[in-house]
Amino acid sequence: MSLLSPALASRLHALLGEGWRTDPSERLAYAYDNSRRHSLPDAVALPATREQVVALVRACHDARVPVIARGRGTNTTGAAVPVAGGVVVSFERMNRILDIRPGDRCAVVEAGVLNGDLQSALKPHGLFWPPDPTSAAYSTVGGNLACNAGGPRAVKYGASRDNVLALTAVTGTGELIHCGTATTKGATGYDLQRLLVGSEGTLALIVEASLRLTPMPQARRALRALYRDVSSAAQAVARLMAQPVTPSMLEFMDGDAVRLARDVGGADLPPEAGALLMIEADGDAQTLPFAIEALMRAAEGDGLVSLDDAADEASREKLWAARKALSPSLRTLAPGKINEDVVVPVSRIPQLVDGVQSLSREFALPIVCFGHAGNGNLHVNLLYHPEDAAENARAHAAMARVFALALSLGGTLSGEHGIGLAKREFMPQAIDAPTLAMMRAVKAAFDPAGILNPGKLLPD
Amino acid sequence: MSLLSPALASRLHALLGEGWRTDPSERLAYAYDNSRRHSLPDAVALPATREQVVALVRACHDARVPVIARGRGTNTTGAAVPVAGGVVVSFERMNRILDIRPGDRCAVVEAGVLNGDLQSALKPHGLFWPPDPTSAAYSTVGGNLACNAGGPRAVKYGASRDNVLALTAVTGTGELIHCGTATTKGATGYDLQRLLVGSEGTLALIVEASLRLTPMPQARRALRALYRDVSSAAQAVARLMAQPVTPSMLEFMDGDAVRLARDVGGADLPPEAGALLMIEADGDAQTLPFAIEALMRAAEGDGLVSLDDAADEASREKLWAARKALSPSLRTLAPGKINEDVVVPVSRIPQLVDGVQSLSREFALPIVCFGHAGNGNLHVNLLYHPEDAAENARAHAAMARVFALALSLGGTLSGEHGIGLAKREFMPQAIDAPTLAMMRAVKAAFDPAGILNPGKLLPD
Repeated sequence: MSLLSPALASRLHALLGEGWRTDPSERLAYAYDNSRRHSLPDAVALPATREQVVALVRACHDARVPVIARGRGTNTTGAAVPVAGGVVVSFERMNRILDIRPGDRCAVVEAGVLNGDLQSALKPHGLFWPPDPTSAAYSTVGGNLACNAGGPRAVKYGASRDNVLALTAVTGTGELIHCGTATTKGATGYDLQRLLVGSEGTLALIVEASLRLTPMPQARRALRALYRDVSSAAQAVARLMAQPVTPSMLEFMDGDAVRLARDVGGADLPPEAGALLMIEADGDAQTLPFAIEALMRAAEGDGLVSLDDAADEASREKLWAARKALSPSLRTLAPGKINEDVVVPVSRIPQLVDGVQSLSREFALPIVCFGHAGNGNLHVNLLYHPEDAAENARAHAAMARVFALALSLGGTLSGEHGIGLAKREFMPQAIDAPTLAMMRAVKAAFDPAGILNPGKLLPD
Repeated sequence: MSLLSPALASRLHALLGEGWRTDPSERLAYAYDNSRRHSLPDAVALPATREQVVALVRACHDARVPVIARGRGTNTTGAAVPVAGGVVVSFERMNRILDIRPGDRCAVVEAGVLNGDLQSALKPHGLFWPPDPTSAAYSTVGGNLACNAGGPRAVKYGASRDNVLALTAVTGTGELIHCGTATTKGATGYDLQRLLVGSEGTLALIVEASLRLTPMPQARRALRALYRDVSSAAQAVARLMAQPVTPSMLEFMDGDAVRLARDVGGADLPPEAGALLMIEADGDAQTLPFAIEALMRAAEGDGLVSLDDAADEASREKLWAARKALSPSLRTLAPGKINEDVVVPVSRIPQLVDGVQSLSREFALPIVCFGHAGNGNLHVNLLYHPEDAAENARAHAAMARVFALALSLGGTLSGEHGIGLAKREFMPQAIDAPTLAMMRAVKAAFDPAGILNPGKLLPD
């Protein structure tokens, strides 16, 4: 049974022309995201203009039909899966870069521009937009903003929310709002633009963004530091973050991750390495050696096994090989993987990793930790056999304990993946009842009929 | 006629003990702020705990009595003036620094901690909190957050909103909410903490803040660049901001400001200087020379009259003397001053200054521009005789045109001072009706009875 009345369907068909799709095979193509979950929408809309988005949302609002914004579906939490049916609005046709103003360090883009395409367009100007999720080549700016995407560079340059100046968006009643100004400072009313970032399409549909750009450093250089154990590595992370040279990346691998990268991935790592840090600095050719020197000094300390400096880009690639060898290796442990990106204050990384290791023993399941140590944002990868019902249940019970652990350490559920469907049941543990009620009130202010991406982010 | 019933007054007296003040002289001391406006509150509350704030707001909510949060009243917009009466809540007793965690680059403070006291406490840890408004020594962190205070350092390190991790606050219904987590990344629900920053006490009362700290640079060095005219200086600003070394300060003075600093302030400035940039870099002793070199290269160009490098702290102070000589000199032009801090994209600074100069001619009133050029955030100082009714009216008409000019250049009303009472009538020009309606809906979600700082920020 379609949620769309024939009258609404024909109204939206007239609005969108061949950008209106109700064919089952088309709907199937927009039913999923990278969470492996799926649910068929009633229709797919491919608007080409903001005016079409406004008209579409107004029609859906009047008919109380769900509207689900979609970039390219690369998110991992189910945030783009239309669990309640309705109309998926894909921004693939709104993919123009409208303006690049180097002197203002600003680019204005439509929501459907790919992150990678934007970076290519910025390169000749010597600028970049900092968010660098793994999916950057094929994820959209609008999707990055909706999920507050980060990546390794966030430790120095911030995540999506830190790199947005202004947004144009369509609320749940179909009002077009203009949030913020394309200036790097502003104290004119409420900051609605950063509120929309990370709201996963539940407050408004972003149609245009003015992004804050950063001048591209001329050079970069990487260090690989091996430590006896996680605790020594975590101490080094705290030392690295407490001195003035902020690394442009600071990635961590625990003992299991190091072992996997060596034994399965073939990375050149000595057996005594119980943890690894990839440390990178960027800058100009003249000052980079001093930055690397400062980072080396901070990396040194009790438990350091070896410290390698990749003086050129080829050596850098070799150092990164250990990190890249990791993800494919994980599948050798078990076919199923739950990958959650909890975040804790940097000083609590040792307790997080220790706690995860003891959960791994308690639940008899391998759990491998690696990720963005400079932000305390670790990817906790639990490996299991999904077809084994008991192991499946154990895996999910263990993950619930990982969340509880991160929260008990002053951290939170997600650093950059978001909540979507995957973690909403844990929201009441992370956020107390009055604050959740406040979030619900904010949701109702933007979307009184509750048509925008229902069933996501906030728990029932 | 007091808005406080005897029952409410005695309930609040019982709650706050001698932290409850209704004596007229006490009320007078909390009636004003740095805007020169004043209005008597019905009472002043000096809570010592968040529990007292919760109980106070609940009682005032039930009785529909206004509640006005107050730091130290240093803001310039009237945001702390209790125009509708009610209870001023001064946070002067909630002034504890609760925690400093250098490895996490985080400090946890009560709202009433002075910015200057925090900086002193951070110094031994080699850390600082970036917001540096002129009032830093005697303004509170809570007030800085409420107004999204900035300062010269914002060009490199961001304003208040960019340097907050988590907030604990009391909403207009007296609910205690916990917004955000003390981690540098987060994608767990709506970002209420940055929404509260800059909301001028109209959404909630901030009682505790987890602040993002930055390692203190070991050294700094200043340049003074003089240009033939504003346009040459503005071109230099765009060049400076388009290269990778972000200055730690980038301050601008227009031709009138240069003339005043020289003729009245006694600063050592040649007559051919039609504009001035103070450019500062920070870093460590080894890399600072390279940063200064990069900034000098960017500062050079058409219209440069002279470029002085202050190699030591004494020379730096001498360079800054020109800037500091300015404010006292302004009063020699006329006794009255309207100082507004409009902001435009950096590339539009020449048009802003040109436009302001022609407004100065049109209205026959001196207008002097200086300020934070790296953010496009200029302080436009209009000098006039307030007691002359015609001139008074002309001054305010001219200022309205300055706002219209900034908006026409893609800028906005305020970069760091906020809206308060002073600019709320201009909000409908800056923000379109659907977006203002959305802001009102957000206000209603946090403060359904409208008791928090009524008459501020949003227009009637």
